[in-house]
Formats: sequence, structure tokens, C-alpha cells
Amino acid sequence: MSRIRNPSLRSKVVSAEDAAALIPPGATVGMSGFTGSGYPKAVPPALATRIEAAHAAGDPFRVRVWTGASTGPELDGALAKADGIEFRLPYNSDPIAREKINTGQMEYLDMHLSQVAPAAWQGFLGPLDTAVVEVSAIHEDGSLVPSSSIGNNKTWLDRAERVILEVNAWQNAALEGMHDVYYGTALPPDRVPIPLTRPDQRIGQPTFRIDPAKIAAIVETDAPDRNLPFAAPDENARAIAGHLIEFLKHEVKSGRLPSSLLPLQSGVGNVANAVLAGLLDGPFERMAAYTEVLQDGMLDLLDAGKLTVASATAFSLSPEAAADLNSRMDQFRGKLILRPQEISNHPEIIRRLGCIAMNGLIEADIYGAVNSTHVMGSRIQNGIGGSGDFARNAYISCFVTPSTAKGGAISAIVPMASHVDHITQDVQVIVTEQGLADLRGLSPKQRARVIIANCAHPDYRDALEDYHQRALKGSYGLQTPHLLTEALSWHQRFIETGSMKPA
Amino acid sequence: MSRIRNPSLRSKVVSAEDAAALIPPGATVGMSGFTGSGYPKAVPPALATRIEAAHAAGDPFRVRVWTGASTGPELDGALAKADGIEFRLPYNSDPIAREKINTGQMEYLDMHLSQVAPAAWQGFLGPLDTAVVEVSAIHEDGSLVPSSSIGNNKTWLDRAERVILEVNAWQNAALEGMHDVYYGTALPPDRVPIPLTRPDQRIGQPTFRIDPAKIAAIVETDAPDRNLPFAAPDENARAIAGHLIEFLKHEVKSGRLPSSLLPLQSGVGNVANAVLAGLLDGPFERMAAYTEVLQDGMLDLLDAGKLTVASATAFSLSPEAAADLNSRMDQFRGKLILRPQEISNHPEIIRRLGCIAMNGLIEADIYGAVNSTHVMGSRIQNGIGGSGDFARNAYISCFVTPSTAKGGAISAIVPMASHVDHITQDVQVIVTEQGLADLRGLSPKQRARVIIANCAHPDYRDALEDYHQRALKGSYGLQTPHLLTEALSWHQRFIETGSMKPA
Repeated sequence: MSRIRNPSLRSKVVSAEDAAALIPPGATVGMSGFTGSGYPKAVPPALATRIEAAHAAGDPFRVRVWTGASTGPELDGALAKADGIEFRLPYNSDPIAREKINTGQMEYLDMHLSQVAPAAWQGFLGPLDTAVVEVSAIHEDGSLVPSSSIGNNKTWLDRAERVILEVNAWQNAALEGMHDVYYGTALPPDRVPIPLTRPDQRIGQPTFRIDPAKIAAIVETDAPDRNLPFAAPDENARAIAGHLIEFLKHEVKSGRLPSSLLPLQSGVGNVANAVLAGLLDGPFERMAAYTEVLQDGMLDLLDAGKLTVASATAFSLSPEAAADLNSRMDQFRGKLILRPQEISNHPEIIRRLGCIAMNGLIEADIYGAVNSTHVMGSRIQNGIGGSGDFARNAYISCFVTPSTAKGGAISAIVPMASHVDHITQDVQVIVTEQGLADLRGLSPKQRARVIIANCAHPDYRDALEDYHQRALKGSYGLQTPHLLTEALSWHQRFIETGSMKPA
Repeated sequence: MSRIRNPSLRSKVVSAEDAAALIPPGATVGMSGFTGSGYPKAVPPALATRIEAAHAAGDPFRVRVWTGASTGPELDGALAKADGIEFRLPYNSDPIAREKINTGQMEYLDMHLSQVAPAAWQGFLGPLDTAVVEVSAIHEDGSLVPSSSIGNNKTWLDRAERVILEVNAWQNAALEGMHDVYYGTALPPDRVPIPLTRPDQRIGQPTFRIDPAKIAAIVETDAPDRNLPFAAPDENARAIAGHLIEFLKHEVKSGRLPSSLLPLQSGVGNVANAVLAGLLDGPFERMAAYTEVLQDGMLDLLDAGKLTVASATAFSLSPEAAADLNSRMDQFRGKLILRPQEISNHPEIIRRLGCIAMNGLIEADIYGAVNSTHVMGSRIQNGIGGSGDFARNAYISCFVTPSTAKGGAISAIVPMASHVDHITQDVQVIVTEQGLADLRGLSPKQRARVIIANCAHPDYRDALEDYHQRALKGSYGLQTPHLLTEALSWHQRFIETGSMKPA
């Protein structure tokens, strides 16, 4: 049976090439996609081919690309390779696009993920010419069943002048009913409270509305999401998870957290998955997740009955977990909810629910300012994503990282962060395999003592302590002591020698 | 007529000395006070005298002090002078306390003002032994009429084991009814939407509840708030105001703001007051303010009928404006609302209302990261206050500053901020007397061009442009280009020579 159940819309089915031909040079295109799921898989490569042909003919052709968050090689990879992206927001993890950004060939605006849809409505980003959105089906009444991510799709469909749909038969038909699309947002002064008070609550509808007159083309696809394998947690990841779970147990014992904890938010990656794996064996029951992305570890927790519900805006599963989910989707019905990212990441909701936030970092300084985005202060890795939305509004804001990177050549704890994404006020707990620093209620100098002692790698601990001691004597002011001639010298040494360690 | 209308509580009236004697060494004391208004004026100096006597006798005696925000010389000044403060949160502007902090004699935790009360409930700050709270009257039923600020008083009264009240007859009796104390907050998982959708809305009650059994002492006072004179706006402040008002007019004309704008938030100080003065002559009618602090300029706007309502948590008036307000309080009835700072600064409300935030800064870097707190990266000025609450959640987040300080020796625009309080994502507009940089929707490199061209002082513009150009060639990555050996060199030069300008 066709996934396009509305007869009049079937007439709009065209090839990816014909659909891509609708996008003119200079257009702003809002694409679906969040963490490698639910992105369009046919139109972007066809657009890249068109762009390459134009470039070969000596014609300029670039577009501005907005998405939910990261996409896949068919989208960011293909368009970046074709030198087809003039401007990109709000998040990227594609290696080709990253290289174009860091060599100055592509402009990139790294945004708080909760703020993208409101900004698009506010208007200062300019008009949105075309939306290219993957859906899993079109109902008879023309409403759209979302795909494996929601991201900013509601906003793109509402705001775009012209809509291209990709209907992906690979997506499980049982996704239907899993989504909760809230249509109660507005611009001020007409905003009202968002009525969500529990992670398992539904406040919207399972489909997107769409004005059929705006649908310019529909492309049928049958292609998998970019599902990356997870490495099994290594010793460091397991140690980090252990420290964090001990801390949470202590908070429950001290009466500062309920025994079911509070809704968990978890960044993506191997350390995050190790923490989730650790919770499988932990003492906490009837937990909930209110987060951006559903990863393998959360499905395991749901399976084990430890987690009652997981709310997010996208899946980010390994191929094995995706296949497993697809084969047993009905068992997860009612326990998984996908929402627009302006709701999954909304400060109002995060603060109300009291999320426990767990995010990765590139480096933290001895006072606990965190750099999540810029290697050596200038080279973008991915982007801030939702970490700012969660870290500032969380009940407890935790950052997790191995204490070193690049085989020990980089210390994750540095004298001064070379770029700041999370100010000290928003960083309450730092965990490395070395230990955990509970920074809540501490002044900067008190924080430095705990971070250096508990989190720094032994190879760097003495040098950090030495810096801090000398800063206590030689700093201009002693609230946050620094020696400005040395504060960034570890990064400079890495740039020059390939290691933060002294020669 | 006595301000203490409850007969049984009259028996608890004691001298300030007797009240201060109830506070033991090592106690944590929650004091009232926000921006120099509504702080206790008798017990803290008496406590300072007691501490000095203890020190003279060779006995250690220090306390931990929590407040709403800044207080007055009788509190922070007297206690800091006596070396009586071991630990201070969440904000300070007292010069003696600042000096003790910057010489390392006093620990200071600089917090988001919206997060102080929730953190006190959450428990990690430790127990609160004593509350010392100024009120303007005690009702017959024992409920308390707040003073000229609310701050965290509701929380201190609820959380403290022992309460000392100062009843200040200097405060205008007509303050009664001006307050809106919301009692609907909770810890998660029991938090619910805060039902405020308009700045003029009342969601609470006009008085504080208090368990009379907790009242250990009442002290009667008749003493003015610390009301500092405002300087008349200078040429720079008027130029900044002009640029900002032109921008707002342009936004209205472009259909991106209603003609009554959106609720205004304004930091304290002469530049902020100049902006408010500029709005007196501007074309905007029926404006509203949803802010932390009510300053002179807002009363003028209310008087002129330009502003319909001003909601805040405290007054911060010049002596003249305070006298004027006191003489005509009835005329302002219904147009002024004071709320707890967890409500005046709540991210949920700020984002819902879509506030236009206008805050000062110490420095911004060429990419628009803002330092609001640390001179030369290490010496605390005051604190982040509510600027983070407002900047991140505002509809438009503006930062205003003269382009130089210290007679030109310091550039407010620097290559790299020496401390970051507001990340680039939270800084949308920067205004100096030189011009306005609208950074919305721009990538870091695009931001740098606009900031250098529009905001930097001509004395520093070429050097900033030179740095940026060389960083574009020599930076490790080109998302946010920096030369780490030079990035903080302007600050270092100031420390060594007293000027950021090359010799």
C-alpha cells in the first residue's frame, strides 16, 4: 500500500532530480533531520549534483541550509562537497562540512536548538523559500506522519513558501502515533504557558498540518537513516558512569533527589551510553527521560522496565538497535514520544521538570567554565546543540569527559577555557574517569581545588595546581585568579608541538 | 500608629544589639536587600560591632551571607570592614566587600539571580540559620508587608530556622498592596506552569506568610534606603540611547516588533537611564516594563503615560526620585508591581513575555562574547546578576556600553573576552556611542566585521581589524579565528602599563 494515502497528492510525485530543480540558487532551504535521523535522502544529493553541474559551467550556485540539527552524508556531506552551502545553521557534525567551515569556505551559525524555530518566526533570519522534509506517510486527509525525528519540521512546513516532501518507506509504519506535535506556540505578546508538566504527557497531535497548495513536489524514497555504530563502553567511560551513579545515589540518600531521580537528559556518544548502561544495574526505578535524542541505552532501560517513558525530538540509534526497534515497535508504543525541538529543549519545560542534564565537553577550565564547541578556541567541532538549553535550566547540570584526549596529548582540564559555551554558573558537576567534582555552592577558588584534585589527569594535575598557586599570587584580581600570559599557553603549545605537555 | 499591628508580636521588639546577639559565629544568614533597597539597616551594623569585639578578643567570628542582590554600606560595607563575611552570595556591589573578594579574603559565589531561591530549596547550599528581613509593616494577623524590595525574602522567611524582622518606618506606608508574592513554586516533580502572561498581572498575594513561632526578634528602624544619585546622561549615553531607539523604530517599521514594543528589561546605571530618558521622546506608546529594578527613568515614563506598568523586584531610585515617589505613591498605585526575584527573573516568564533586554557590559570581544563581571579576567566588579536570566531568554538581547573606559585606556571591544558571562548566542545587539551592531543571524566572522566597524572606538578600530585579519590567516580553525599568543595581550598590556594602547 502506498504511503501516500491522499489521492490528489499522488499526482505530485516526481523524481528527486525534478524536485531539486525547484530550488533556485541563493535559496534558503529548511531541511528535516536531527542527529542523523529523519533527514531527506534523495533531494539533497540531487541538488548537489545540480550545483556541481552549475559550478562546472562556471555559474555560481549556493544555498542557505537550516535543519533541526545534524543530518547525514547525503545532505550536509553531499552539499558541502559540492561547495553548495553558503550559510548553515544551527548544528553540524558532518566531517566535510566541518572542514569547509574551519577553512573559512562556509559560514556557520551555531545556535541554541530551542531557539531556532522561534527565531524563524521572529523573522530576522530572513524568509524561508523551500522546506525539504522527510515524512513516513501522508494521511488521506493530507496530514503528514512525521519520520524518525521532528526537529524544526513543524516550523519549516508552516513558514516555507514551497514544500518538497520525501516519503520514506524505510521508516517503520508503526512510528505513527509516536509523535506529539504542539501547535500552541506563538510570538509574544501572545505566548501562553506550555501545559507540559510530566515527561509522558501529550499536549499536541500526532501529525503535521500542511497547506496542500504549498506542496510543490513529493519524492518517494526507501533509504535508511545514518545510524552509526556505538563502540562498547571502554574503561574510562565505565569509570565516569560509576562516579556519576555514585553521586546520584548519594543525592537520593541525602534526600535531595527522589528515588526515581528526575527526568534524565543525556547528550549523545559513548560516554553518555555508558552512563545509561550503568543505570541498568543501578538502584533507581521508574525513571523518565526528557531529552533531545533517544539512543541505544535508553531503549535498554525501557526494555528492562527501569525507564517508564522517554521523550525526545529524534532517534540516534546504532544499526542494530534501529533494526531491533523496528522489529518490536509495538512494544515501545506509549513509552516513546517525539516532540518538536522547541518543546524538547524548551527552558520553561526543562526548569519545570527539573532535568538532570548530562553532556559532554571538549575542555573545562580549573574554575569550571566549559568549552563544548571549539578545539583550541577557534576550530569548530560540532556545535552547542541543546547543551545550553539543558545546562542552564537543569536541576543538576553535569558534564562528563575523559580527562585526556589524543592519547594524552590534550588535557580536558586546562588553566583557562579557550572558548566558553557554559559559564561557571551553569556547570555544577564535572566527571572524568579520575573522579567527580561537585561544584554546587562553591566559589571559583573553591571550585578550582576540587576540579584539579578530582578530575584532572595525574599527568597534568601538578601543572594545573602550579598554575593556580602562582595565579593566587600574581593575578590582577583574586575572584577568578589568572595569569593572562600563560592562560592559553597549553593550547598554543598543542598547536605548535601537537601536545599540551611541556617538551 | 505602630507599624507592628499584631499585639503579641510587639513583645518581641528588642534592640538591634540584642537581635544581633542571636546570630552565632559560623551562621548562614539570609538578609533582605536588592539593589540598595529594602535591606536591614540596624542588625547588620550591630552584628559587625559584635564581630569586631570578638576579633579584638582573639575569637574567630564570621558568617555566611545570602541576600537578594546588592545591599548598602550598613550591611555589606560594615560586615566586610569587620572581616565578618566568610562567604557571600549571589551579588555584591559594595566597594569594601569587593576589595576583600579581590584580595582573596572573602569567598564569593556569583549566581544567576533567578536561581538563588530554587537553589536554597534544593538544599545543596546548606541550611539557613537566620533570616534578617526588613518589612514595612506587620499586619494584625501577623502577615508581613514587604519593603522596597522583595528579592528572596519569601524564601528566607520560609527556610530559616530563626527570623529577625526589621520594621522600617521610613518606608512609605503606601507600599502596601504594591507587592505580588507568588506562593506557587515547588521543587520538581511538583512544579507547575507559572500563570503569568502579562507584566501587569497579579498571581500572588500582597504579603509574606510567616510562622510567628519562628520570629526571634523584631527591631524598629527609621532609616532610608541607600539611594544613589544618578549623573545626568552624558553625550555618550545619549548617543547610545539614540542608536538603540533608532534600531527599535526600525524593528517596528519592519513588522518585527509591535508599536508598543515588548516588555522592557533594563539594567541599572546611567546608560540605562539615558535609554529610558530617550524613550520619553520616542514614538512608542503603551509600553510595559518587566525587569529587575525600577529606576528613575521608569517613573518618568509612567508619569508621561508612555509606560502602562512596571514590574520588578526592587526599587533603585535617586534620593530625589525616592522622595518624589514617596510623596505621590498613590498616583503610582496599580502601575508598579514588586515580585520575588525568582519570578521577576524567571526564564519561563522572560521567554513567554518576549522581553527586550538591555544590559551593560565590561567588555565584548570581536565575535560578541560578553564579559559582564571580571575586569581583566580576574577582578570581580559586581556580578552577573540577572543579566544571564534576561539575555538568554529575551526576544532581543541588547548590550550597551561606552566604547572606552578609564579615559580611553580601556577598549570595551577586545580581541578575546578575558572572561565570558554571555556567550555569542545570547548577545544579539551591541551598542556603543559609535553605533549599533545587529548580530542576529550572523556567523562569528560576519559578527566581527559589524562589531569592529560599528562599535569599536576609532582609537582601537584599526588594531582590532588588524588582529582579525591576521587571525583569518593564522588561526588554528576559522570558525572563530583567534591568535592565542595575542588574544589576551591587550589586557596584559593594561595590567602592565595602565593602558591597552601600545606604548
